[in-house]
Amino acid sequence: MSAPNVAVLGATGVVGREMVKVLEQRELPVGRLKLLASPRSAGTTLTFRGEEHTVEAVTPGGFDGIDIALFSAGAGISREWAPIAAERGAIVIDNSSAWRMDDAVPLVVPEVNPEHATERPKGIIANPNCSTIQMVVALAPLHREQRIRRIVVATYQAISGSGASAVDAFEAQAKAVSAGQPVEHGELKGQLAGNLLMHWTPDEASGYQEEELKMVYETRKILGDAELRVSPTAVRVPVINGHAEAITLEFGSPMSPQRARELLEKAPGVEVVDDFMGGVYPQPVAASGTDPVYVGRIREDVGNPGGLQMWVVSDNLRKGAALNAVQIAEQLLA
Amino acid sequence: MSAPNVAVLGATGVVGREMVKVLEQRELPVGRLKLLASPRSAGTTLTFRGEEHTVEAVTPGGFDGIDIALFSAGAGISREWAPIAAERGAIVIDNSSAWRMDDAVPLVVPEVNPEHATERPKGIIANPNCSTIQMVVALAPLHREQRIRRIVVATYQAISGSGASAVDAFEAQAKAVSAGQPVEHGELKGQLAGNLLMHWTPDEASGYQEEELKMVYETRKILGDAELRVSPTAVRVPVINGHAEAITLEFGSPMSPQRARELLEKAPGVEVVDDFMGGVYPQPVAASGTDPVYVGRIREDVGNPGGLQMWVVSDNLRKGAALNAVQIAEQLLA
Repeated sequence: MSAPNVAVLGATGVVGREMVKVLEQRELPVGRLKLLASPRSAGTTLTFRGEEHTVEAVTPGGFDGIDIALFSAGAGISREWAPIAAERGAIVIDNSSAWRMDDAVPLVVPEVNPEHATERPKGIIANPNCSTIQMVVALAPLHREQRIRRIVVATYQAISGSGASAVDAFEAQAKAVSAGQPVEHGELKGQLAGNLLMHWTPDEASGYQEEELKMVYETRKILGDAELRVSPTAVRVPVINGHAEAITLEFGSPMSPQRARELLEKAPGVEVVDDFMGGVYPQPVAASGTDPVYVGRIREDVGNPGGLQMWVVSDNLRKGAALNAVQIAEQLLA
Repeated sequence: MSAPNVAVLGATGVVGREMVKVLEQRELPVGRLKLLASPRSAGTTLTFRGEEHTVEAVTPGGFDGIDIALFSAGAGISREWAPIAAERGAIVIDNSSAWRMDDAVPLVVPEVNPEHATERPKGIIANPNCSTIQMVVALAPLHREQRIRRIVVATYQAISGSGASAVDAFEAQAKAVSAGQPVEHGELKGQLAGNLLMHWTPDEASGYQEEELKMVYETRKILGDAELRVSPTAVRVPVINGHAEAITLEFGSPMSPQRARELLEKAPGVEVVDDFMGGVYPQPVAASGTDPVYVGRIREDVGNPGGLQMWVVSDNLRKGAALNAVQIAEQLLA
């Protein structure tokens, strides 16, 4: 697979477009690029390395000769099409939640558990949830040295993670608010302009949002630690792109902020941005459009000596989705 | 003190104006209202119960005959003027951080620790920090039944808490962002439009923001529990008014969500807004302009069985500042 043929399913969506952009930027060798989508989106053209590509409607035959299929078309489409693509010989890297908790599907963050990608009996590798990816990239280097027993995390999640129509709905809301006009909820299921929402699918049994439960179960699977306890709260904030997380960590034995900083400074995919006395800490607008997971405000927990608190920010469309998927593809080629 | 003479120092600020509004709305009997401010703001007129009042420059004699002085003019002004007002016979209710941790000054939330207000050897009663007030109103009813050992709290704080010039700076930023123009940081010390900031004064020794340390120490003082552990993260979000908090609680013995809901439903100052399956939970735009502390998403902590997580929202200018101060005044009259 020196220059694999790559398909992108869901190419016209916000993550699909980012996948094409990241593929181009990373200069992964690509033999043939095939852009696939629903019949509704077929016919759209996208530019890749200077050439126009027309998006085709997905069909089983569309995966013939494809080596790597990057999926970003929602869980229902993934459940239907991933086995078809795999049967035709493609390795599917799926960005939806459809396969993440399947025991026969590895859930991979290349900086954290690349070794999981080699066992893929269904021919499918799952890309984790955006909030989980940036969290595990920041925590794995610490967890390897000193076991993390519990994570309390509150997210500040950007709108781009909800798709292009949610961003459009937000921008319409922001205009309405500044003009003093009534706000339409639309795609966002509420007013997000100047407000905070918790609009992910709720789970009746637990009272959690599915988004929060993903952070519990995906984190355990990626870190290979079924005992790890996670206490999550997921909140949508009026920020276009770039997720942030306020993270509180409890360790089996104390971890100092100095040691955490040392470990994170040499960790792959992490950039420590932490001169808080100088006003320097990670911010979504600075992270947006870039690759690293930014970690700052690393401090001993004033409420739990020996524990830590930190602030983790990353571009949810890149490391949280498209970049991580492309990095998995790169790993398959290495 | 059946109809006390009331002074408001800092009457032209965002909290000062809210104090005058709340005084009017609550129909507290007021003999004479005196509006005071710096010489710079003197001459401004404000309407109270249908009459125009002219703001006067603060002088020692301005407090003569005043029974209750509501202060909202910053810590420096409070340190200078509160003893002067007290010496002239006024009881000072101070909204700044100047006196909060003084052992001889009670720190009062009327729903939580009204009994502390009776011991005020300096003639000063302190109004807690906005983030602390809404948290303790929601937690005190639980803490009374089952001791809370630890609180992990991440805040989502609105801009109005930074004052009128910060709101103006934010609105200018939002316009610049939507017009694709460069953003001026101004009063906000960063871009808040479409972004998140942690711009409170940092404490070098601990790595915390002063805002966060207030939540640690004020909570202990108000609840009278020096052992209570608090792990805070304070974040400024692009919301005009209404603070939100993601709160995680550890108890000495398990507390069920059902029992917490029962306790909160009958708690003073609290409104439970918690039908999450029906999409109902507290939101800043709904809380803004109202009095209660709204509590929702009360759930057993998936990362710590027997513990709880919840979401607490309140108007930071009202219960978080002006309303709490006026309620203290009402309590003095009762």
